[in-house]
Amino acid sequence: MLSTMQDVQLNISRILEHGRKVHGRSTVTTWTGEAEPHRRTFAEIGDRAAQLANALRDELGVEPGSVLATLMWNNAEHVEAYFAIPSMGAVLHTLNLRLPPEQLVFIVNHAADRVVLVNGTLLPLLAPLLPQLPTVEHVVVSGAGDRSVLDGLDVRVHDYEALLAGRSDHYDWPELDERQAAAMCYTSGTTGDPKGVIYSHRSIYLHSMQVNMAESMGLTDRDTSLVVVPQFHVNAWGLPHATFMTGINLLMPDRFLQPAPLAEMIEREKPTHAAAVPTIWQGLLAEVTARPRDLTSMKQVTIGGAACPPSLMEAYEKLGVRLCHAWGMTETSPLGTMAHPPAGLSAEEEWPYRITQGRFPAGVEARLIGPGGDRLPWDGESAGELEVRGTWIAGAYYGGASGEPLRPADKFSADGWLKTGDVGVISADGYLTLTDRAKDVIKSGGEWISSVELENALMAHPEVAEAAVVAVPDDKWGERPLATVVLKDGATVDYTGLRTFLGQSIAKWQLPERWTFIEAVPKTSVGKFDKKVIRRQYADGVLDVTRLA
Amino acid sequence: MLSTMQDVQLNISRILEHGRKVHGRSTVTTWTGEAEPHRRTFAEIGDRAAQLANALRDELGVEPGSVLATLMWNNAEHVEAYFAIPSMGAVLHTLNLRLPPEQLVFIVNHAADRVVLVNGTLLPLLAPLLPQLPTVEHVVVSGAGDRSVLDGLDVRVHDYEALLAGRSDHYDWPELDERQAAAMCYTSGTTGDPKGVIYSHRSIYLHSMQVNMAESMGLTDRDTSLVVVPQFHVNAWGLPHATFMTGINLLMPDRFLQPAPLAEMIEREKPTHAAAVPTIWQGLLAEVTARPRDLTSMKQVTIGGAACPPSLMEAYEKLGVRLCHAWGMTETSPLGTMAHPPAGLSAEEEWPYRITQGRFPAGVEARLIGPGGDRLPWDGESAGELEVRGTWIAGAYYGGASGEPLRPADKFSADGWLKTGDVGVISADGYLTLTDRAKDVIKSGGEWISSVELENALMAHPEVAEAAVVAVPDDKWGERPLATVVLKDGATVDYTGLRTFLGQSIAKWQLPERWTFIEAVPKTSVGKFDKKVIRRQYADGVLDVTRLA
Repeated sequence: MLSTMQDVQLNISRILEHGRKVHGRSTVTTWTGEAEPHRRTFAEIGDRAAQLANALRDELGVEPGSVLATLMWNNAEHVEAYFAIPSMGAVLHTLNLRLPPEQLVFIVNHAADRVVLVNGTLLPLLAPLLPQLPTVEHVVVSGAGDRSVLDGLDVRVHDYEALLAGRSDHYDWPELDERQAAAMCYTSGTTGDPKGVIYSHRSIYLHSMQVNMAESMGLTDRDTSLVVVPQFHVNAWGLPHATFMTGINLLMPDRFLQPAPLAEMIEREKPTHAAAVPTIWQGLLAEVTARPRDLTSMKQVTIGGAACPPSLMEAYEKLGVRLCHAWGMTETSPLGTMAHPPAGLSAEEEWPYRITQGRFPAGVEARLIGPGGDRLPWDGESAGELEVRGTWIAGAYYGGASGEPLRPADKFSADGWLKTGDVGVISADGYLTLTDRAKDVIKSGGEWISSVELENALMAHPEVAEAAVVAVPDDKWGERPLATVVLKDGATVDYTGLRTFLGQSIAKWQLPERWTFIEAVPKTSVGKFDKKVIRRQYADGVLDVTRLA
Repeated sequence: MLSTMQDVQLNISRILEHGRKVHGRSTVTTWTGEAEPHRRTFAEIGDRAAQLANALRDELGVEPGSVLATLMWNNAEHVEAYFAIPSMGAVLHTLNLRLPPEQLVFIVNHAADRVVLVNGTLLPLLAPLLPQLPTVEHVVVSGAGDRSVLDGLDVRVHDYEALLAGRSDHYDWPELDERQAAAMCYTSGTTGDPKGVIYSHRSIYLHSMQVNMAESMGLTDRDTSLVVVPQFHVNAWGLPHATFMTGINLLMPDRFLQPAPLAEMIEREKPTHAAAVPTIWQGLLAEVTARPRDLTSMKQVTIGGAACPPSLMEAYEKLGVRLCHAWGMTETSPLGTMAHPPAGLSAEEEWPYRITQGRFPAGVEARLIGPGGDRLPWDGESAGELEVRGTWIAGAYYGGASGEPLRPADKFSADGWLKTGDVGVISADGYLTLTDRAKDVIKSGGEWISSVELENALMAHPEVAEAAVVAVPDDKWGERPLATVVLKDGATVDYTGLRTFLGQSIAKWQLPERWTFIEAVPKTSVGKFDKKVIRRQYADGVLDVTRLA
């Protein structure tokens, strides 16, 4: 039996028109580094989004399905592009301005971007790449910046404001199939080429509702959200779309991402919410420790993108600011979990929950898959790879204009779930704790050993400076752990002593047999342990490894 | 371009399994009228919903598409039916136990219900109707009540608990097309036969998300919601579904809807939220005025179903309880608007917003259609009929098992919007104020005159006891207002005096020419002005009407 409900498509244009009309007074404030920030109301953004769409269609020949890139900071113009491009049926492709140039070139060519909208301040990054970007026909420049770097290049150059000026602020947004592409974002995988994730109108609409649910970020038009997480990074965690749904005011830092201006914008604009990765909060903490500021307007802060040290959460707690963990990835739009503790607990009792990755919303189904492919219980102990399913979870990667979607077996299960590549446990009440990346887990005789757990236990020894544990091949068990340890100056402990120490907290069968003392743990360019290097050194026989009985 | 997102259907079974697992500790508390209420966890409800589905399939032969009715109060078993029946692909049909028997008979036969789940305490209502309900094969009785009234009737009778006992608590819920029927509810229209609205899995899922958005009810597992609005009335405003999505605890009054037990359950169970129609709050106010109770646990109260007098809101404000207007109908699932004021206002400034019907969420598009079919501006002055569109808004009525969906032109526009039959204005910032039912508006020369506005203005005269204004045919203007007035004892004012008085607040062209003093305004069985009777009396010439120049 079919229902008698209306068949209305979940389109981004509906969010835009709602925010424009019902929340027309809400504002997007963009930091300028000058005495006054720049403010624009949702009503004005709505008018300008329609003008932009008219310009893109009438001047640049943008059609449904055209892919348009943005190389922009977080600002009002980027919000206009966020709404105008998908609403007209085209696809918004946000470019990560932190990527190495060769990856940007790969991504633009793979997506076949026809237009690049760019902030003037980022032209020095874009201009040298343009000769390698044959699909790009138009560059639209917003804001100050030396445009002469584009001289002589084979693109049509437009000024953003000139393009909008005098155009109609009405656009008859088409009714789109909600499963159609709205936006795309490439993952910067550590191996292989970047992979494109294509969000649909449906996925963005549903994700926006979830962001605004009281159990998630739960904001309304009484709030102002400081969105530090870049708009080129998983749609700024969905905040720009979510804000137009409920009238949340946006505070956008543009390129002023340093601790001092961030502290200043918080003190002056008094956001009630903020979203950023841990390194931002580390930097801000140092700033306000040196030059105290009032941060207490922020009732709630969403922190994600990497594990957040509990010490950082505690430091902010003392400043009257509560950090809340969230976990997600480009492939999950990104809202996967948030670590609001359950009801009825004391502050002390809440901590064990707050340091987890958090709970899944109804829209994200989760399962843990063990080493043998079996489904593991939610008991807080059984560690497996996290797989997720849901309407805003990727089921494939973009295969290019002429290709089929890509479903590599290490990223998607046979029944269509996303393999997150994260290993962890889930408690009986649904809280996720991630421990390892799947590739760093040691698969020993059908069981998994957490390299991170071994490393933390080793680094708890008073004479150990650093320790990295990697999987190495083993004839009997498939894989076994190799412990590489950096001792502190003057240390006297030996391998046997370290193994005895480990045995106090680690199950016997997980204890490493293979040990080596090294000078320093190899690191990646962003400071993470580079386990690939250690594994290669082991394979090449350049490490002096002792094998205990 | 298609997205690479997973194609996951919005199914009610996903809400059920989420609540069962992630919010397994949350509870449904059912009032029993005894020393202790009955409590069941979401985990238990989940187990029992699966048992119920197994029993319905294996014992009663329920199949996908079967329609099952409930004739039940708000209680844990009704929540189990809410989830089990749609999740297995069947359709939940909630029966309004307040309807006249002949309407119940019509509705059950029209929906072709195969099974009726009934509370034992309601058997005296059901049993006499069964001989007229040929499609009903099974009656499942839950809880205490004299079952002998079913003796000799041509139905199979089952005990709810016996049916569940020993069954598997696992059911392999099918993946359903989200547009498939999940639940149905008939409107008790004032004219003609009741009309069936069929909600889809999609509409219920999206509506549940909206209920849980911070801008709407915005509850989490830290809340307990006292759901006084019946589960047979538009799915209890969507609360049972919404609670399993985020773990909100439910407090269910069963048949104890009188002011004294309601006051007791609030004081003892300390709900943080409640939902009910104004008459419930009127009764409770009298109760706690006579016997003071602490109601302050209720941070937020949703009030809807009829206009709420501001005096009632003020009285609760003094008790520390904030009432929030909501507007909706069976055809809107029902969440249409909620009257949270905008940010930044004083308590005094908030009042004009709080007495409106409220603002629309992004999922409900609204437009006002004027007397000439033209679309009116949102200016707080232009009055038109409210039309709405959205994923949880009806686009038709059920046409019966063999019929096409019904789309009567007075209920649905040519382009598919729902004509609400309500007339009002919308302010520039999106707040809806309803003034009249469309059928009570006077259509005078292409303009509309509000009968309610004229009545309120008349009743503000110190010598007027009651006044009803209706439209009557007019050769020149199409329709003009007829004022029927009940004077207080000893009144001396005449028609001319009343018209002069009206002229102080009402535009001249809207002033009635036709006047009559009557003994009393005819009323319906629920105490509303019965304007049909007045119009008929006028047509029949039985009223003594004076026509002013």
